[in-house]
Amino acid sequence: MSRRTLHRGRVGDFGIETVTLPNGAVVDLEILRHPGAAAVVPLHDDGTVTLILQHRHAAGGLIWEIPAGKLDAGEDPADSARRELEEEAGLRAGAIRPLPAIWTTPAFTDEVIHLFVATELSPVPARLEHDEVITTARIPLEQARRMVREGEIRDAKTICALMLC
Amino acid sequence: MSRRTLHRGRVGDFGIETVTLPNGAVVDLEILRHPGAAAVVPLHDDGTVTLILQHRHAAGGLIWEIPAGKLDAGEDPADSARRELEEEAGLRAGAIRPLPAIWTTPAFTDEVIHLFVATELSPVPARLEHDEVITTARIPLEQARRMVREGEIRDAKTICALMLC
Repeated sequence: MSRRTLHRGRVGDFGIETVTLPNGAVVDLEILRHPGAAAVVPLHDDGTVTLILQHRHAAGGLIWEIPAGKLDAGEDPADSARRELEEEAGLRAGAIRPLPAIWTTPAFTDEVIHLFVATELSPVPARLEHDEVITTARIPLEQARRMVREGEIRDAKTICALMLC
Repeated sequence: MSRRTLHRGRVGDFGIETVTLPNGAVVDLEILRHPGAAAVVPLHDDGTVTLILQHRHAAGGLIWEIPAGKLDAGEDPADSARRELEEEAGLRAGAIRPLPAIWTTPAFTDEVIHLFVATELSPVPARLEHDEVITTARIPLEQARRMVREGEIRDAKTICALMLC
């Protein structure tokens, strides 16, 4: 395997990897090497969840998501989930439980998102970064799942986590 | 908004987009512009589904997925789903029904995957491309959902489609 990096960026490193597949074919693959991420369902004691409505340029506007963010180097995914929960949703977790980790789109990235459910939630001040445009909404989990089935919630990590939590 | 394309590739075009966010911040975003894709759950009359076990270089080996592929220019996503179902799983759909479409990872790509469920399935010869390393397995839908909950199926589109079909 050889790799030619075309761009070292904020999200990850984008490059062309020349690989020999198990069937003997030699192919050039475009791969974005990503540090991994964590995402967390904030599940309140009353059966509601806090979702975030986030501006995503690639999606052309606001979309429903759960709090999430990239892992810092060497960071435990659960710590990352706790941090994003505080920063983006203004909630501190008394307990956090792992769900499965997912490949977001393995045709062109090694990004893994580690999913979690946070419970025993208490409010803290949110701390948005300068490039984050986020508001929050608290709705029953069953309503959120209905929004998934009706196509109103379309972010893959959010769908996976809401259906699995 | 301005865009500087760094690479025009097989998967899509990778570049840097300078955008003004709704909060006034001006940021450079790395974006892979993708043509979109379709993915389909092959649901047999007896309640089983056909999954594919596919080699993904970015994922480091074999992972469970459902048949899927990129849209050709101007292609109806349902036609793309039918084609991938035949090519990758060797199955022809008598009927196909849309599920919601998903954003795979909107932090850095506009990729949308249109999800479907195919029924009234009949066998046809599979036609793999030279860079596809795929075998198939037929298992009960409930077993597939258990594999999702236990973290054995980790591909996001596959999880979304299996939980929604």
